[in-house]
This record gives sequence, C-alpha cells and structure tokens, in this order.
Amino acid sequence: MATLCRPAISVPEHVITMEETLVLARKLHAGHPRLGLALRLIANTGVQTRHLVQPIEATLRHPGLTERNALYESEAKARVPDTVRRALGNAGLGPEDIDMIVYVSCTGFMMPSLTAWLINTMGFRPQTRQLPIAQLGCAAGGAAVNRAHDFCTAYPEANVLIVACEFCSLCYQPTDLEVGNLLSNGLFGDAVAAAVVRGQGGRGMRLEHNGSHLVPGTEEWIAYAVRDTGYHFMLDKRVPGTMAQLAPAMSELTEMCDWDISGLGFYIVHAGGPRILDDLCTHLRLPSTVFRYSRATLTERGNIASAVVFDALDRFFADGGARHEDRGLIAGFGPGITAEISLGSWSDGRGEELKETRRELAEI
Amino acid sequence: MATLCRPAISVPEHVITMEETLVLARKLHAGHPRLGLALRLIANTGVQTRHLVQPIEATLRHPGLTERNALYESEAKARVPDTVRRALGNAGLGPEDIDMIVYVSCTGFMMPSLTAWLINTMGFRPQTRQLPIAQLGCAAGGAAVNRAHDFCTAYPEANVLIVACEFCSLCYQPTDLEVGNLLSNGLFGDAVAAAVVRGQGGRGMRLEHNGSHLVPGTEEWIAYAVRDTGYHFMLDKRVPGTMAQLAPAMSELTEMCDWDISGLGFYIVHAGGPRILDDLCTHLRLPSTVFRYSRATLTERGNIASAVVFDALDRFFADGGARHEDRGLIAGFGPGITAEISLGSWSDGRGEELKETRRELAEI
Repeated sequence: MATLCRPAISVPEHVITMEETLVLARKLHAGHPRLGLALRLIANTGVQTRHLVQPIEATLRHPGLTERNALYESEAKARVPDTVRRALGNAGLGPEDIDMIVYVSCTGFMMPSLTAWLINTMGFRPQTRQLPIAQLGCAAGGAAVNRAHDFCTAYPEANVLIVACEFCSLCYQPTDLEVGNLLSNGLFGDAVAAAVVRGQGGRGMRLEHNGSHLVPGTEEWIAYAVRDTGYHFMLDKRVPGTMAQLAPAMSELTEMCDWDISGLGFYIVHAGGPRILDDLCTHLRLPSTVFRYSRATLTERGNIASAVVFDALDRFFADGGARHEDRGLIAGFGPGITAEISLGSWSDGRGEELKETRRELAEI
Repeated sequence: MATLCRPAISVPEHVITMEETLVLARKLHAGHPRLGLALRLIANTGVQTRHLVQPIEATLRHPGLTERNALYESEAKARVPDTVRRALGNAGLGPEDIDMIVYVSCTGFMMPSLTAWLINTMGFRPQTRQLPIAQLGCAAGGAAVNRAHDFCTAYPEANVLIVACEFCSLCYQPTDLEVGNLLSNGLFGDAVAAAVVRGQGGRGMRLEHNGSHLVPGTEEWIAYAVRDTGYHFMLDKRVPGTMAQLAPAMSELTEMCDWDISGLGFYIVHAGGPRILDDLCTHLRLPSTVFRYSRATLTERGNIASAVVFDALDRFFADGGARHEDRGLIAGFGPGITAEISLGSWSDGRGEELKETRRELAEI
C-alpha cells in the first residue's frame, strides 16, 4: 500500500513580517478608500512572517512577464534539487527508484516542465513519467498526493516523487487594487516542498482512499486573469464561506469508508486563510487544536499555495506523527473551487519490519 | 480492461491552404535572408490545409496576451462541449458516468482549468477528478491516454474523458523570425479532440501497457519562451533527428511485452512533421503506409499538437479499425523531448457481448 513519506521543505532567505507588510500597505495605498478594511483583513490572517525569493524592494517591482518568468525558472532550478534530495532521503530512496514525478506549481510556467530538467540533471531514469500540473492552484498539493496514490494503486511497486514549487511573490501585481488583492499581498509566501509516495514500505501516511469535490458554480471565485503582465489573482469575498459545502464533502468521503470525520487522529488541511480553519472546526465539530500544524504553516510562512499541506505534514512528522494505524486526512483546497481529499492511516513502518522478519525466518 | 473508444474531432471553420501560406510568407518576409529555406521547409511539410479559429487577417495580428488568452477561453467554451458530447456518444456514456477529466492544452492558460467549467455546465458529477496538463505540448495526447489508462488500472470500473484543445494559431508571434518559427507558422493548426477511456466495455483500443521516454539533454530543443507577448515556440533544427533515439525506446517497450514492433496491426503516432514519420519508418523498418492516418492528419490539418493522435485514431476508426485482438500502438512526441507510448490491442466489443451472454445464461 502506498505511503506518503516525510516531506522536505525549503523557504527562501528573504523574510517579511506582518508588521512590515502593514507598514508597506499603509505607505503604498495611502489614499485607498478601503485601506482600513484591507489592513484589518491582513492582520486577521495571523501571518507573522513570509519568505520571499527576492528582497521586498525587488518583489514590489514588476519588470514584466518575460523577466518574471525567467526568474521563476532560475529560482526553481536553484532551490528545487536540494529539496528533492532531502525528500528522497526521507523516503530512503534514490532518483533511480522513482517512476513518476508530479510537479505542481501555479506561479510560473515552463514548457517543458521542470520535470525534464530534473530528470536530466538529478539522475532520474529517462523512463520516469512526468506529470506537471499548473492549473489546480492551492488544491494541487492534495491533487498531487491523490494522483500519486492512484499511480501506486495501478502499479503497487512504483514510487512517485511530488514537487510543489510556489513562488507566489512572482505573481505580485502592483496595479491590482481590489481589497482581495491587497489581502493577497499580505497572505501569500514562497516555498518549495517535495515528498515521496512509496508503493511499498516507508513510514508515514498509508494512502487508502481519495476523492475530489468541485463546489458548483464557483469557478470564478478563485481564478487567474491571464494578462500581458502575467497571472492576476482574483479572489471573491465569498471564498471563505465555501467550507460550508466542502466540509460535508469531506464528511461524505470518510463515511464511504465507514470512518467518522470528527474522530480522526490527524488533520492536514490547506491553510488558505484563518477563516477556512475556523469554519472547518465549526462544520466538522472539531476542536481548533486539530489544525495546529496547518495554522503554524500559515502563521510562519503564509499561504504557500500547493506547498501548504506538505509543510503542515512535515510539522506533524517533526512532532512525532500519529500512533501506528491512527486514521487521518489530507485536504487541499483551491480554484474550481475544488477540494482534493486523501484518507489514510499512520504507519510507523512496523508492518515492513514484520514482513522483513518473516522473510528472514522463512529463509532459515 | 480499459478501452480507448472512438474520438470526436472538430476543426474551426477558417481554412488556410499551403499555397496561401507560401504566398503570405513571401509577402511578410520578403527581405528575410533565409526565406528560400523557410519556403522549402514549409512546402516539405506536405500540410495542404489548416483550420484556424479566426480568419487569417485576424490571426496575423497580435493584440497582446490579455486579448489572446481571453479569445482562447471563449473559443474553448464555444467549441469543446459539442466535441465532448460526441465523444461521450461514441463511448455510449453520459457525463454522469465519467470519473476523471484529463484536459490537455498548451496554447492557452486558464486557472481554474476548463475542467471546472465543463463540470459545472455539462452535467458531470462534482466528484469528477480534474487533471489539467498544460506543459507536455504535443506529447500530451499520448500522456492523456496513458494517465487515463493508469487511472482505470487503479479503478477498473472508472471511465475517463480526455479533452485536447489546441488553438496553435493563438500562439502566432509575428516578431519571431528564426527559420524554425517561419516553418512553425506554416505547420501548426487548430483543433479540438475528445475521447473516452472506458474501464469496462467499449469498442476500440484495449490499453495494455504504457511507458514514457525522455531523450537526455534535449529539454531546450522544443520549448516555450514565456514572454510579455505570451508563449514563444522555440524549435531546434535537431528535433527531427530525435527519432533515432525514440524509435529504440518504442522497440524496447514492445519487447518488454514480447511484442515485435515491426509486426503490429496499427500505428497511431504524433505527426509533428513529415520527417518524423519517414524516420520512424526507417528506424523501425516499417512501410510508409503504416502511418497513413497520421500522415492524413498532417496533410489535412497540420500539426494540431496534442490532438494529432486522436485525429489519426479517428481516421483509423472511420476506416474500420483493426481485426479483433490485433495489436497496435499510440505514441505522442513533444517537449522534453518526451515520448508517451501506449500499447494495446483492438477490441470490437465482442468480449463484452460474450460476457453479457454468459451472464444471461447464468441467470437462466
């Protein structure tokens, strides 16, 4: 059974605090009629620090899409390989063991995808399947886990590498002045995450069931407008309310497995903003502590798009993970509005050791 | 076992002939030092007609990426649904039977992907998985078949809808004057294709095995430069020669199944250009007639990117298909340089009828 192993995360060296963000917003948008609201919304995110691939002065300049995308490529090439190496190390595998690379990123565009460069430069086999996904936004973290799970269900000996590379600061658009944009400017951060789904063996979350849910009629609520200046993030104020529809979808999926969503051992969900986490607590009747890993990611790194679920999962690992066979879920939320939900149970790798012992005993 | 059913294809109403293309190239590039070579290369493609979403006068104008991408979206919304309906009809299924939509397109960008709009407007279930792939270019047709195959291998009762929406004319860049660009301007066409992979039942190609191959060190040979003006197609003159490496990769995959690649019943390959087809004949020791469906697509529609393999497959269906259980392959080629190869055998649906008869007999 496929196991999602411990992720590796890296965040860039340039840091901006909430205090600096608020000072900047006051300065840049001094005459904005809804500045007060924007500042309150930013303060409410609880995002204390965010990491950026460039110093804030450079982040605020828009040098054009040509330069922005070139920067995306050079930063990805500079930052992804080490993260990938650590994720492979966490799974106890080498590049030659990987059968598919799922590369998710919505903040820059390359064709061929970075997958080709990774295969060429890091020792992956030329037969490695490439699955680049650019259009699922923040939901792509969950989608990557789910497509990796599907692949290992089809080929139980296969291993899948997931890479989530999100440089949200490279989508900063200084001319976008809607309240939703000002909020976003104080919410999103940059990060790279990688994780391996092992078809056999490994310690982590044994993936058992997955599902997707699209909230009808909301496709324009989280969207990119693609313009001469690149991707422009559009955020409808009704977005936070969608948990009223996604929470039941999550419950239904767990019920299909005869599980009770309010009694799981761990919850790793996309922290798009604080309201999402609060609403999930309400709708699913959960204490707010269950989302402490997601909330820590949001507080310390901001919304790092598809990388959030991996960052939160890494914190869960660092905290010791769950008890063997404890059930849990991962859920990514993003444009569509789409939820990608994964159900599984914790494995401390004990099953593998038992199998190994049995094999050894059989050989005596 | 998963079966790739008959595709549906649609091409836009505006047509440009090779003669018109050559006249235009002579007029637009009168002083170009390598015009003669470009004209010869265009003539050598053998592309007699291409279909475009706009009249040629509008195609030649570049109104900026903002307008181009808005046009991509409106044309996709206008042209995809009917093609999807026909593909579902060919498979004998309705939207409610579909478990995943694989949407491949490298000529426009939307987030959320068109998958969300299709689900919302065409009656697909909110639980339908969305797999949008934008970065595999012409190889994405083969990749879509292969990922659909994987999904049905994981979930044998599942059905997958594939949509390939390629409006190559919306990537025309009037300022790109390399010989490779002038050639591309006479090579690519617009089309929409859709096809269903049925987990159970259906007439068409039973998918049995698939594989991917990246030619090492060629990631810059077919690539997009992403600029303020959108995607700029970069084509290295060494590309046609890559069949020397992809042909052996195709042979190896068939040998893994104990099949002989020179003795298959059908060959549906991406017709990137005429040299690809000629070289495959040489390297795989095949008569040129085996690629007649791919060649017909190239001649009548140009290189329609990820839609080529579906258009060629549709021609094969129209010609009666193969004998029951005849073996064959589908191969998409594109940036990476990547080949996505699928092996299978023809099914006239007879197995299903037999199963049905057995079920009925068992009930007596």
